[in-house]
Amino acid sequence: MGVPNAQLVSSTYFPAGASRTIVTRLREERNQMTRVRVEGFTVSLDGYGAGRNQDMQNPLGVGGMDLHPWLLATRTLQRTLFGADGGTTGIDDDFAARGFTNVGAWILGRNMFGPIRGPWPDMHWKGWWGDNPPYHVPTFILTHHPRPPTQMAGGTTFHFVTGGIHEALDRAREAANGMDVRIGGGPNTIQQYLGAGLIDELHIAISPVVLGAGERLFEGVDMRALGYECAQFVASEKATHVVLRRQAHNDGRQF
Amino acid sequence: MGVPNAQLVSSTYFPAGASRTIVTRLREERNQMTRVRVEGFTVSLDGYGAGRNQDMQNPLGVGGMDLHPWLLATRTLQRTLFGADGGTTGIDDDFAARGFTNVGAWILGRNMFGPIRGPWPDMHWKGWWGDNPPYHVPTFILTHHPRPPTQMAGGTTFHFVTGGIHEALDRAREAANGMDVRIGGGPNTIQQYLGAGLIDELHIAISPVVLGAGERLFEGVDMRALGYECAQFVASEKATHVVLRRQAHNDGRQF
Repeated sequence: MGVPNAQLVSSTYFPAGASRTIVTRLREERNQMTRVRVEGFTVSLDGYGAGRNQDMQNPLGVGGMDLHPWLLATRTLQRTLFGADGGTTGIDDDFAARGFTNVGAWILGRNMFGPIRGPWPDMHWKGWWGDNPPYHVPTFILTHHPRPPTQMAGGTTFHFVTGGIHEALDRAREAANGMDVRIGGGPNTIQQYLGAGLIDELHIAISPVVLGAGERLFEGVDMRALGYECAQFVASEKATHVVLRRQAHNDGRQF
Repeated sequence: MGVPNAQLVSSTYFPAGASRTIVTRLREERNQMTRVRVEGFTVSLDGYGAGRNQDMQNPLGVGGMDLHPWLLATRTLQRTLFGADGGTTGIDDDFAARGFTNVGAWILGRNMFGPIRGPWPDMHWKGWWGDNPPYHVPTFILTHHPRPPTQMAGGTTFHFVTGGIHEALDRAREAANGMDVRIGGGPNTIQQYLGAGLIDELHIAISPVVLGAGERLFEGVDMRALGYECAQFVASEKATHVVLRRQAHNDGRQF
């Protein structure tokens, strides 16, 4: 991003007294450049971002896997998830690729990390994604139950945050080091960040399927009052892609 | 539809005793051909089919008019609503035109007919659409408060039905005389017919706008359990068009 490493600048070029101010300022600038994004979050025609009754067999709830044919078929996802060549190119792949561009940290709700509820019984569960998860950056899991970080292959480290959405975002911003923070989901996590006015942009995909029940993405959030407008609207055969962006003059604080 | 007028057949060709059976059978066949359709019903990205706080200034609730640029711009609507030439052709117009094809009767919820609630104070209110409404066929208004029919210019007659959705559909089928019945809305009326398993097909348009609040189309109905599947999914620059159809083997009764 063209920003010099703050630590290096402060220790090399500036005396100890001045450096703290410089570091603070550089950090502020860096954080201002960080955008908080939702990417590739897919909903059904009836508005559900996850099906009901999540469990081991249904990581996205019943019917939830029906949401993602547009995404799984893309070259980006084939490479990211399976290390495979091939896959579709075009609109769907453009949006899939965009979702991994300039992302320095992720935030996930606990239910997106796994089906376990309550205190962690042990350190065995390490997400749905195997030894080498598709994040490859620090990934912050919202939970009420503390757990030490888990380092995975490929650059992903899962950090477990018990202090709520603001603490998670502060830590994710810090880790992103000037790059963006991607909020992965699920719906409840996105709603919390939306309601706090903390999301700059959302890419939503609408899939040609009905789920009938589950978790709605836009539940308990008034996207109009929060200042979001549709900035892009384009469709492939498999999905309609929507980019929602908050107007600059709206601070978006709903709660 | 190639079906002879039952009245004519019975009185001309058959003696009185046989005619009743024939009439009954012809009527049954006619009714089986009648399909119950929702057409051109537009929802926002966040799922609302009408804004909040409907009143004289906001027939579709606050922000509700933002839903319909795709529709109002079409050649079909320009001609139907304003008797004007011009308007867009293409996907949007194809769907707009489809919505008026083979429709022999409409059913509207009372709030779609007007902003008045409770007993009718007088016969003054005759809908939002002026002397010559865009229906041009018998149009049945669901209401709890009786009122005599109102005949309008251009073939529209408003009938006020106090017996509920089944009575309204029976009368609309009869009036449609073998053609289809179009359920106009609003969301609550559509939900009632969906829940009773009475809608064969829905064309929904998704507009690139957020309403934030109002009446959701898919509220209190489990479209998956009701047996609906996406049969068509195609987008213009102004809207994504979706056709939902009930699978033949599902009788769709939710309640």
